[in-house]
Amino acid sequence: MVEHMKWWGWGRESVSFSPADKPALAPFIRKHIGLDVTRPPAQAPAFADLDIADPILPDALRDALTAAVGAEHVHTETLERVVHAYGKSLRDLVRVRGGDLGRLPDAVVYPGGEDEVRAVLTAAIDADAVVIPFGGGTNISGSLEAPRGEIRPVLSVDLGRLDRVLDIDTDARLARIQAGALGPDLEAQLNALGWTLGHFPDSFSHSTLGGWIATRSSGMQSDKYGDIADITKAVRVVTPAGVLATRAVPSQSTGPSVREMILGSEGRLGIITEATVQVHRVPEERTILGYFFPTWDEALLAMREIAESEAAPSVTRVADPGETRFSLATSKKGSAVTALVSRGLKQYLARVKHFDLERMCLSFIGFEGSSGHVRTQRKLVGDIVKRHGGVCVGTGPGQLYDQKKFDTPYIRDFLLGQGALADVSETATSWSQLASLYTGVVARAHKTFDEIGVQGWIMAHLSHSYHSGACLYFTFAFASPVTLDGLERYDAVKSAIQQGFIDLGGTLSHHHAVGLEHAPWLADDISPAGVSLVAALFDGIDPGHNLNPGKIIPSVVPGPAAD
Amino acid sequence: MVEHMKWWGWGRESVSFSPADKPALAPFIRKHIGLDVTRPPAQAPAFADLDIADPILPDALRDALTAAVGAEHVHTETLERVVHAYGKSLRDLVRVRGGDLGRLPDAVVYPGGEDEVRAVLTAAIDADAVVIPFGGGTNISGSLEAPRGEIRPVLSVDLGRLDRVLDIDTDARLARIQAGALGPDLEAQLNALGWTLGHFPDSFSHSTLGGWIATRSSGMQSDKYGDIADITKAVRVVTPAGVLATRAVPSQSTGPSVREMILGSEGRLGIITEATVQVHRVPEERTILGYFFPTWDEALLAMREIAESEAAPSVTRVADPGETRFSLATSKKGSAVTALVSRGLKQYLARVKHFDLERMCLSFIGFEGSSGHVRTQRKLVGDIVKRHGGVCVGTGPGQLYDQKKFDTPYIRDFLLGQGALADVSETATSWSQLASLYTGVVARAHKTFDEIGVQGWIMAHLSHSYHSGACLYFTFAFASPVTLDGLERYDAVKSAIQQGFIDLGGTLSHHHAVGLEHAPWLADDISPAGVSLVAALFDGIDPGHNLNPGKIIPSVVPGPAAD
Repeated sequence: MVEHMKWWGWGRESVSFSPADKPALAPFIRKHIGLDVTRPPAQAPAFADLDIADPILPDALRDALTAAVGAEHVHTETLERVVHAYGKSLRDLVRVRGGDLGRLPDAVVYPGGEDEVRAVLTAAIDADAVVIPFGGGTNISGSLEAPRGEIRPVLSVDLGRLDRVLDIDTDARLARIQAGALGPDLEAQLNALGWTLGHFPDSFSHSTLGGWIATRSSGMQSDKYGDIADITKAVRVVTPAGVLATRAVPSQSTGPSVREMILGSEGRLGIITEATVQVHRVPEERTILGYFFPTWDEALLAMREIAESEAAPSVTRVADPGETRFSLATSKKGSAVTALVSRGLKQYLARVKHFDLERMCLSFIGFEGSSGHVRTQRKLVGDIVKRHGGVCVGTGPGQLYDQKKFDTPYIRDFLLGQGALADVSETATSWSQLASLYTGVVARAHKTFDEIGVQGWIMAHLSHSYHSGACLYFTFAFASPVTLDGLERYDAVKSAIQQGFIDLGGTLSHHHAVGLEHAPWLADDISPAGVSLVAALFDGIDPGHNLNPGKIIPSVVPGPAAD
Repeated sequence: MVEHMKWWGWGRESVSFSPADKPALAPFIRKHIGLDVTRPPAQAPAFADLDIADPILPDALRDALTAAVGAEHVHTETLERVVHAYGKSLRDLVRVRGGDLGRLPDAVVYPGGEDEVRAVLTAAIDADAVVIPFGGGTNISGSLEAPRGEIRPVLSVDLGRLDRVLDIDTDARLARIQAGALGPDLEAQLNALGWTLGHFPDSFSHSTLGGWIATRSSGMQSDKYGDIADITKAVRVVTPAGVLATRAVPSQSTGPSVREMILGSEGRLGIITEATVQVHRVPEERTILGYFFPTWDEALLAMREIAESEAAPSVTRVADPGETRFSLATSKKGSAVTALVSRGLKQYLARVKHFDLERMCLSFIGFEGSSGHVRTQRKLVGDIVKRHGGVCVGTGPGQLYDQKKFDTPYIRDFLLGQGALADVSETATSWSQLASLYTGVVARAHKTFDEIGVQGWIMAHLSHSYHSGACLYFTFAFASPVTLDGLERYDAVKSAIQQGFIDLGGTLSHHHAVGLEHAPWLADDISPAGVSLVAALFDGIDPGHNLNPGKIIPSVVPGPAAD
């Protein structure tokens, strides 16, 4: 039995975000977006109220799917169809709350192996059906929904039964893992034998290896372990041209990399069934230290210097002043962070170090390895931090961050329930353009807040450092009725931010994929000729546009009912 | 004026390999391939003796090319056409010596900028001509030759005039460099400002940035600097779909990576004009240490352990016993290596360390960075080496290796002149399969030597270490008349080695590209579905097969004269 997230929101039914034990949060939100979050929340929508059309599933296709995976793994129940209709973008959540479920899949199939995936794909193409692969359903770029006007049968292929670590090559430190394995499940299987993948995106608890590969994911320890594109050494993919299988060699000169064509392909070339990934021994020591920097500019300079230095941290992350204050406002009564920002430390930072408490920035830097290695790296990083006026505040905040890091998406549902639209948008750019991109994007967001007449909030952190640059991750929010009309205002802000990324030297996304949400900026990002290359690849492999049509590059939906 | 290598062999006219000052070499060669290399060499072929057909260059095409780049940059002279007919594979050199120049280009054009490249490509496609980009001409996989039966005009587009470092972003440590810049030229331009690219393939002296990208090159310091695929952060490419320009962001999630489609594309998608590459400050300290290991197996274990460890060397390289003995045999009288293997050291290794001098393996490990960093890395590596019975023999051999590393290809011309066919073939595989692949390939080569009735030699070294595996680089030789018939025997050996790579878990090439030479193994390596993906890309962008047709994936030559 494959478990899914709430049909109407993020995460487990039993888990939700509460401000009750965070006394500074409600005043913070009231001050910055003018919203009272102490009122009782709006009810989650009632499933019984949904108006759902019957599935379109021709008998021949149903028979072929049943023959492929067994009747018990072909589902047409309403809840199954709803759970697989969307990902978990802000847009998705608002639409679900508004009862707009779009073009639901007609059936959800759960293949149990590569042969069954092949049989499903063959059946689908023979019936001219649409196939949308589904991992954990965490996508926030619109990669999982069928085109509204799709008149062909739509199948969601859920990889959840393919959840095993198949083997570990302890000499090459390579693990073969099935694509449907969720983060916690695959880490548990690896950890039991002393290994780790080291890939921890914010969506970790509910996302899968196949999903990470299909969207070019990046985890918070990417400084050490690499992005999923670096971690993935070989793939197996069921395509219309047969089973694609690359070799798990460390590097090769075999023409344009086919492995790289699968990374980020969002189901447009086929269904990923398995990957061979680099694993590492669970490190002897692992620590995350907290630091405060006096200003954002000094913090960025320190991060750049660390990236150039001989230090090898596993995490580099720093919040801007706004996100720093938000973090402090969400800290629990009596927690390490609360203790940290006790009057004593604040006085020290303000009076002795001359920090402006409204401008200071909270940073986390992680270290992993042998104790000697960790000691050396801490010293190298510590010297750079000091040169930029930073102050180490120990392991307390880092531990807290480490425990809470996967809980952030729950806050969005809480805010939706209170009447605020909150979302994230991330980019990456070179060190030379980071500061100006940050300033420009913040200014554009505020200009748009003014234009649409809302009191808005935007904050950011830097994470995922590379030699040449880093990721900037923005979070924004404003009070709004949670309606389809509210999405128009959201679109205005989101578009202003995305256009800012492109105009100011960034990329449309560092690790959240293109889907539908970011497709309007693709040609600006990779150039029209780049789009032509990607289109040539998709059209050549999938001339009938059966494979997750419209994602990355919009395609014309066959038939008269295009939206 | 763009300089070229000898039309009949490797490198500069004034440079050649001589055994005169290497007293141990002739006996070594006599013993292992039964050839007396003290005889006077065969004369290089006489240019005047070549039988060259006139170029086919329709007036309209000539006019368009002249309009594009200026008459002085459109060449149809015989020497220009011959220099651009082939790369420098063993096959190429034998054919040139035999007067078989294949399908010569009809004209060689030298564009001076991206606009001129665009104009050339437009003119070529309008005239249904074939376009083959040309960098330094060092390719050894057949990537530079026109199909024998090609009846359309053939143009070689030499990027040699695009040789400048355009700018260096010192914050992001990114340099924009034109594609035609040769290794020494671009390093000189970077070094003058305190920077290095750190990319040093064996072909470095005569190969270009664009060529490295088009073939997925790897340099000997790849352990630190990465392969060219890692180093290249953005590309500009003139394609039939327009100018492709990607962004120099450190990482992105924008669908299948277009940058990666260009890496290894061998001119099949267009002409690379520029790249943005990661550069580094010239390190404070740089050293290469020599080590002897008692056996190949112990050496491989040590390399694997170093790759897993927290040590970060810049070079890891170890020769098998055969290549170790060859290195010692090519050492100059009175050189550091000769001193090294003086009776004293040999006695120490044999009597004190109980080394079998026929089985020991010479290794080079490089370290770069601050003196503190270098000291730490040497200690980490030294401990691992010791655990595997290795002995450090200081910096002498490493310095010598460092000075001579680009001279190896000259030996091949020397041997050709003496009547021996010598060549290289490299692969990469996982640490778990390295030892068995090595043993299997050596056995297959010897079996083939027996079958074709020659006394053959094969040796190898490991270089380019990664977390999951490494490159194995084989060199083989046997005495043979240097004739087109001799190539059949060469083919038998080369094919046996390549098939061994595929059968034993390797890749068809780690960094020498596919071209024509390795195309027969492509489907075995990346799977038939993988070939379909690459073909979809090529056919979609270049439906007329004007761009370097037949490379990577063989294509049918239009017209009746297909070979």
